[in-house]
Amino acid sequence: MSTRIEKDFLGTLEIPKDVYYGVQTTRALENFPITKMTMHPELIRAFAIVKKSSALANAAIGKLDPVIANAIAQASDDIISGLLHDQFVVDPIQGGAGTSMNMNANEVIANRALEILGEEKGTYSIISPNSHVNMAQSTNDAFPSAIHIATVSTLDNLIIAMEMMRDSFIKKSVEFDSIVKMGRTHLQDAVPVRLGQEFGAYAAVVSRDIARIKKAQQTMLQINIGATAIGTGLNADPEYMKLAVENIAVYSGFPFIKVDNLIDGTQNTDTYAEVSSMLKIAMMNMSKICNDLRLMASGPKAGFAEIRLPERQPGSSIMPGKVNPVMPEVINQIAFQVIGNDVTISLASEAGQFELNVMEPVLVFNLLQSIEIMTNGFTVFTKYCLDHIEANEARLHDFVERSIGVITALAPHLGYERSSQIAREALHSGKSVRELCLMYNYFTLEQLDIILNPFELTQPGIAGERAFEKQ
Amino acid sequence: MSTRIEKDFLGTLEIPKDVYYGVQTTRALENFPITKMTMHPELIRAFAIVKKSSALANAAIGKLDPVIANAIAQASDDIISGLLHDQFVVDPIQGGAGTSMNMNANEVIANRALEILGEEKGTYSIISPNSHVNMAQSTNDAFPSAIHIATVSTLDNLIIAMEMMRDSFIKKSVEFDSIVKMGRTHLQDAVPVRLGQEFGAYAAVVSRDIARIKKAQQTMLQINIGATAIGTGLNADPEYMKLAVENIAVYSGFPFIKVDNLIDGTQNTDTYAEVSSMLKIAMMNMSKICNDLRLMASGPKAGFAEIRLPERQPGSSIMPGKVNPVMPEVINQIAFQVIGNDVTISLASEAGQFELNVMEPVLVFNLLQSIEIMTNGFTVFTKYCLDHIEANEARLHDFVERSIGVITALAPHLGYERSSQIAREALHSGKSVRELCLMYNYFTLEQLDIILNPFELTQPGIAGERAFEKQ
Amino acid sequence: MSTRIEKDFLGTLEIPKDVYYGVQTTRALENFPITKMTMHPELIRAFAIVKKSSALANAAIGKLDPVIANAIAQASDDIISGLLHDQFVVDPIQGGAGTSMNMNANEVIANRALEILGEEKGTYSIISPNSHVNMAQSTNDAFPSAIHIATVSTLDNLIIAMEMMRDSFIKKSVEFDSIVKMGRTHLQDAVPVRLGQEFGAYAAVVSRDIARIKKAQQTMLQINIGATAIGTGLNADPEYMKLAVENIAVYSGFPFIKVDNLIDGTQNTDTYAEVSSMLKIAMMNMSKICNDLRLMASGPKAGFAEIRLPERQPGSSIMPGKVNPVMPEVINQIAFQVIGNDVTISLASEAGQFELNVMEPVLVFNLLQSIEIMTNGFTVFTKYCLDHIEANEARLHDFVERSIGVITALAPHLGYERSSQIAREALHSGKSVRELCLMYNYFTLEQLDIILNPFELTQPGIAGERAFEKQ
Amino acid sequence: MSTRIEKDFLGTLEIPKDVYYGVQTTRALENFPITKMTMHPELIRAFAIVKKSSALANAAIGKLDPVIANAIAQASDDIISGLLHDQFVVDPIQGGAGTSMNMNANEVIANRALEILGEEKGTYSIISPNSHVNMAQSTNDAFPSAIHIATVSTLDNLIIAMEMMRDSFIKKSVEFDSIVKMGRTHLQDAVPVRLGQEFGAYAAVVSRDIARIKKAQQTMLQINIGATAIGTGLNADPEYMKLAVENIAVYSGFPFIKVDNLIDGTQNTDTYAEVSSMLKIAMMNMSKICNDLRLMASGPKAGFAEIRLPERQPGSSIMPGKVNPVMPEVINQIAFQVIGNDVTISLASEAGQFELNVMEPVLVFNLLQSIEIMTNGFTVFTKYCLDHIEANEARLHDFVERSIGVITALAPHLGYERSSQIAREALHSGKSVRELCLMYNYFTLEQLDIILNPFELTQPGIAGERAFEKQ
Repeated sequence: MSTRIEKDFLGTLEIPKDVYYGVQTTRALENFPITKMTMHPELIRAFAIVKKSSALANAAIGKLDPVIANAIAQASDDIISGLLHDQFVVDPIQGGAGTSMNMNANEVIANRALEILGEEKGTYSIISPNSHVNMAQSTNDAFPSAIHIATVSTLDNLIIAMEMMRDSFIKKSVEFDSIVKMGRTHLQDAVPVRLGQEFGAYAAVVSRDIARIKKAQQTMLQINIGATAIGTGLNADPEYMKLAVENIAVYSGFPFIKVDNLIDGTQNTDTYAEVSSMLKIAMMNMSKICNDLRLMASGPKAGFAEIRLPERQPGSSIMPGKVNPVMPEVINQIAFQVIGNDVTISLASEAGQFELNVMEPVLVFNLLQSIEIMTNGFTVFTKYCLDHIEANEARLHDFVERSIGVITALAPHLGYERSSQIAREALHSGKSVRELCLMYNYFTLEQLDIILNPFELTQPGIAGERAFEKQ
Repeated sequence: MSTRIEKDFLGTLEIPKDVYYGVQTTRALENFPITKMTMHPELIRAFAIVKKSSALANAAIGKLDPVIANAIAQASDDIISGLLHDQFVVDPIQGGAGTSMNMNANEVIANRALEILGEEKGTYSIISPNSHVNMAQSTNDAFPSAIHIATVSTLDNLIIAMEMMRDSFIKKSVEFDSIVKMGRTHLQDAVPVRLGQEFGAYAAVVSRDIARIKKAQQTMLQINIGATAIGTGLNADPEYMKLAVENIAVYSGFPFIKVDNLIDGTQNTDTYAEVSSMLKIAMMNMSKICNDLRLMASGPKAGFAEIRLPERQPGSSIMPGKVNPVMPEVINQIAFQVIGNDVTISLASEAGQFELNVMEPVLVFNLLQSIEIMTNGFTVFTKYCLDHIEANEARLHDFVERSIGVITALAPHLGYERSSQIAREALHSGKSVRELCLMYNYFTLEQLDIILNPFELTQPGIAGERAFEKQ
Repeated sequence: MSTRIEKDFLGTLEIPKDVYYGVQTTRALENFPITKMTMHPELIRAFAIVKKSSALANAAIGKLDPVIANAIAQASDDIISGLLHDQFVVDPIQGGAGTSMNMNANEVIANRALEILGEEKGTYSIISPNSHVNMAQSTNDAFPSAIHIATVSTLDNLIIAMEMMRDSFIKKSVEFDSIVKMGRTHLQDAVPVRLGQEFGAYAAVVSRDIARIKKAQQTMLQINIGATAIGTGLNADPEYMKLAVENIAVYSGFPFIKVDNLIDGTQNTDTYAEVSSMLKIAMMNMSKICNDLRLMASGPKAGFAEIRLPERQPGSSIMPGKVNPVMPEVINQIAFQVIGNDVTISLASEAGQFELNVMEPVLVFNLLQSIEIMTNGFTVFTKYCLDHIEANEARLHDFVERSIGVITALAPHLGYERSSQIAREALHSGKSVRELCLMYNYFTLEQLDIILNPFELTQPGIAGERAFEKQ
Repeated sequence: MSTRIEKDFLGTLEIPKDVYYGVQTTRALENFPITKMTMHPELIRAFAIVKKSSALANAAIGKLDPVIANAIAQASDDIISGLLHDQFVVDPIQGGAGTSMNMNANEVIANRALEILGEEKGTYSIISPNSHVNMAQSTNDAFPSAIHIATVSTLDNLIIAMEMMRDSFIKKSVEFDSIVKMGRTHLQDAVPVRLGQEFGAYAAVVSRDIARIKKAQQTMLQINIGATAIGTGLNADPEYMKLAVENIAVYSGFPFIKVDNLIDGTQNTDTYAEVSSMLKIAMMNMSKICNDLRLMASGPKAGFAEIRLPERQPGSSIMPGKVNPVMPEVINQIAFQVIGNDVTISLASEAGQFELNVMEPVLVFNLLQSIEIMTNGFTVFTKYCLDHIEANEARLHDFVERSIGVITALAPHLGYERSSQIAREALHSGKSVRELCLMYNYFTLEQLDIILNPFELTQPGIAGERAFEKQ
């Protein structure tokens, strides 16, 4: 294998001749063979946006030769369009607060820019990863800015997936609006609810999660580019700062602005933790919803059997004909992953010291994973499961009919204590509440028809009240 | 001990004659001797607000005898003013989704109302805990409404404590604004920062936490009173719902409104989880800040010794004269507690099923504990520590003087590579950067005085640039 | 209020005349009004055991006047027997690594010992909290030793509660051994299992948890008394060390020994984390079991209704006659608390620095809470719920009869693919597997009776194999 | 692209002709594009071991044609040796309790076995993924057995990496045994300790972690192969069960045995959680150690500077010459990942229901990730950092000399109170403890030389006691 020699202040190193990364990336490869994974593609793209924005800002204020700046911008555009991603080889879990990722970007862009200018890879006297590509930047502002870009942009996809899911819940709530179902609290029969109301509540909570995630996405629009090493902006011209942020807004397509306090913006990672918390809450909610769906779909014979989920794959390698609720199950698992990731993110956030949080690599690794698996999971869950859920109306009706919980509607008329006695008798005798009320002459058949109308029981008010008033 | 007999549909029970609670509370006492603690006083008050609001709403729509309603309201007022709290005896961790807490409130209020009307305790035919005190309510709306009231009101105290703490950070940032200190990333010397900037960043992050907590507090203003058992509002007149919420707003002093979707509002607990997440983030930030303070105060001889914390208590039972940073340490521990509580809250939130989350007791137990220990902790931390922190200026100055990190300011002039060589030589030779620059004739003494002016190094821009331009 | 004056190296303080605690406790009271709770009684007792053991060891090697040593021992005995616990007033969450708890113990014991000798409280020239009660100790060995004692002793109670619970599960597994029930995977009907096997599996997992907790309890038997400030044993005579440990073993009743490496034993808290992890695992398991019980008990009409839990209290303030599974629910909540506590304990453990973990107070607060609520919870759960669970045999039988899952037993005879077709046809037609097999002449009635014998299906082997061989 | 048609009971599907996986894997590919990652190679190998063991056991008892069994065994051997891993394409996070992974294995092995027999891929009438490769198995025993094999085997590598790390700590403890350093508690100067003792304590805690992990590994040696669908062993001949386990022990190289209670062994995942807890504890300890190392290495000018870590890579893209402690930092991040993973594993474990835990895929994904990143991290940490740590003896000596903490050694002679006064005076006057003692004539110079001998201060006993006795 043909090689080239590169050096930094720790010495020289032999590097495969045709790779675009350089000496510092190579050191990082040796130091951090941890997950054996590589950087998230959106983070790679985001770094390229930062580098392009910065180079053009430096050129605009006369600090960087326009020829070099343009080569850097062009190299960055290649990466933005998806090229050279295989040259981003450092591990997502790494020491050094992201310096290795930033230098991987600096080196790949420098070498690609050199190539564009017709120069040999490694001729850093012409374009230097540090002095030119990283000009007026530090890992400590370039990396967080890239994280923000990647997060905001992947959240956009997540929000789209969630909106589709919410719309599907709404459609089902309309479709199921006239189907009465037994409400349950403590897994014990309570009073009736409509299946449409149930799905309407699911839509409501998903809507709230979307709103929360959107708000968190907003807070991510403040970036610290120009902060340089520790937020004081040393070596970054104020005019450069202004232009760099504007460029990032343009090239990313999101309205990024400069964070108010650059020192704060460089040392703290609470906005990432805020995003993660919102994701965690969304997944708690989705896990609860999926547990409900799995319970309602339990059976087919020895379970609730109130709804039918689409059959997506044979469920057992040994039990013929068995089909399992695999789509809600995968959402449950995504929930556990995201909740665990949130703990990792919390720990990493808490571990900042003084001017920097050096634990950002593991933090962003988990944050982007959470966003990605949620986006992917919701997409297939909606398309392959939610959209096609069917109600088992006969079963739902049967449960409501047999239930004792309807006694609650009689309590305002009979009092809590007398109602309790009827409920107990119904349970132990097997007689229905209706039968017992007639037997004891508490109500007429007509009255019971009015009060115990299942649909009426799902709406506010004292059931049958007007009916009685009329009498 | 003199007793009275009470009964419910499970049978009769002997109860100490003079207690205000009744049969259901007594059953709960037997069932749940878990933490051996009792309900949070703000939750007791909140229940009383709900009961008063509900009774007066029921009276206003003609469902409840005004004499009874007024007795209930008066009994509730006693509790709001702090009386009878010792009658709230059920354990904060309990099965039953809070029914035991709600019935404890219903029973105490019924018996106190009976007493007000000159009746014997236990004569529930006159005022019944269920039929009158709990009229048009279920645990499933009364308890969540009480949780919301208690949370919103205790958050108010927390926000006040945080604002005082933030103001103290701001005062320190002004006081320390002219003191230059060595900035650190990775615990390694970086470039200078002002001690005031450091405390300014702390103030900034606390401000952001206050804003986050205020937003979460806002979302808690929607309550589900009127939802009754499962959110359908069965047995609750729409007019009653309206009045009950309005009363709660009046008697609590906070602008509570009805939640949009009562089904959703009854089964989901994500707003509690949102509050908890915001608390968790605030504590991650505070833990980081306290770690910084403890590091800066480390010593007195073998540490950083950059600041002095007030001496609050002897630090050791064996080492004479030792004093420890006990106030930041207690904040760290509160952080660990709140982060753990957030996991408990997340688990409890995820465990809802269908129309209800029966895990609310453990959830609210942890939520109110988090709020309380944060409020208490911040109050003493601010008063006994933060307000009195002093800078050790000589030490701070000495560190900046000896530092090699100032080389960064020379890099725009010398290039990254040559600057690296000087930095390495400075480290290994013990010579200062300034000495070496003069030795190699890179700059004149005047130039170095301009570029390496410590105060200048803490501000944006390329140090010494204008100076050079002038030349 | 009458007062006395005490002083330490930070100054003098007025203290209520009749309290047994002194100046340092009073400072801690002002510094740490955090949870407003007080120390766990077992931790108070444990401190007294340490102080007694240490004083008598110091006397034995001639360092401490026997009169003073005996007075200290007698004062400690008072505390061990439950007296003076109200004098232990410091908050369980406190800065200072437990110095305030240790000094609270030192001061109360010094003053009680003075009283025993007929001296005034506060005359520390005769018996000093530091020089005499704390002789040859530091908070950094006395407090961990006390934690170990309290943990080992409370774990003993927990283990007893768990053994009773396990025995109850075993009894139920015997009682239910002949009752066949539909097994479920993914909440979907699988193949039959016996209800006794189900409870036998619960017994098995609880047994494993007991074994794990016992092992963790063993590891807690190594204590660091004699380590003094940082584990080097400075100011602690080796002979004293030996005697102090032996005394602790005698007075606590547990075979404590000296930890191998005192430096390690003073700075690390991983054995506490190990106990907590074992508790967490036990609660995960119990939460799963309680979820199963709640599902099996769901109904009474619109649920599984396979078992009946004892009725412990009315379940609803609005729904007459409703009864909820409150005992399993409280176990679920204890699980969430213990899992959250484990996160707090993990965070606190990770936060040790150099020679000490100053976060021990919050750590032990959570550890002892976990142990206590588990002990209490298991006790009531066993007594009020598990012991009295009944099977609904008719329902269980009915589910097995209607199930399609029995097809699995036919698969070795028919092949997986043909069996799948029958299963699907059974599901969609409503015909039973038995009917279809006869219809298609796959088996004779006699063969089906042998293969599909429900009891046989719950045992290893290919169902009906021998029967066929015989033919 | 050329295709073939496969079918299952849900219908037919077109599959690329040359792939080894089949219809069910293809369905899973569509259903679960979640992480876009694939199965862990050790889990693939483990599945192959299970399939081979099972086929040969089935052949031995006469249930499976030896020709088919041998083809299956040979196909499995290919996979064990690393071939065909690219045919294992299903996502590690998937619904269905691992059925997709098991069927992926069944299909690849069936098709490879067919190929070995000279048959076309997909001719399942000859070798069926379900009827032959999966014979007498269910996902519910094959998958857990494979998880156990993969876990035990990867833990072996982890233990080796930890033993090398422990040995390195021991070597350093010997190397540094005569170097006295200032001990610190609360980050405040305490009393002296030897740097070798510090590293000895690190070795001790790592040793304890190794022992814990080994114990947990032992508990993983019980597997449930033969349990089939729900642990009843339906369709699995007892003789087969025995042989299958024995084969697994032989082909894996680890002494696996049958789990005591197959029902328990199929529904519970607490042994995985136990492994994860032990990993979590090890990482808490390592994170603490790495925090210590980073603090001791802080500087070079404005920090502790007590040790030097090897320089592994340039530390900053902007600050010339800066080097950061990247190796300990990566260990901290691995700790956060593993602690978060443990939460995910706990949640997944808790979520089992009845006869199965369907959340096993996300559980094992996290478990194997934790093991792998720890193994990788410890290996590079030891080799690139720990082995080469150097002490800065001058600095360490200087801190001890200037310290006030040595006063503790004088306390047994002077009393705690008088010693406190000297300590305070030393702090405020800048005079040394030694100077003040001479000034006040508390000791002679000879006495002080004996008592304050730094090395002596690091050993048990009252410093200088014998010297005084001699006098």
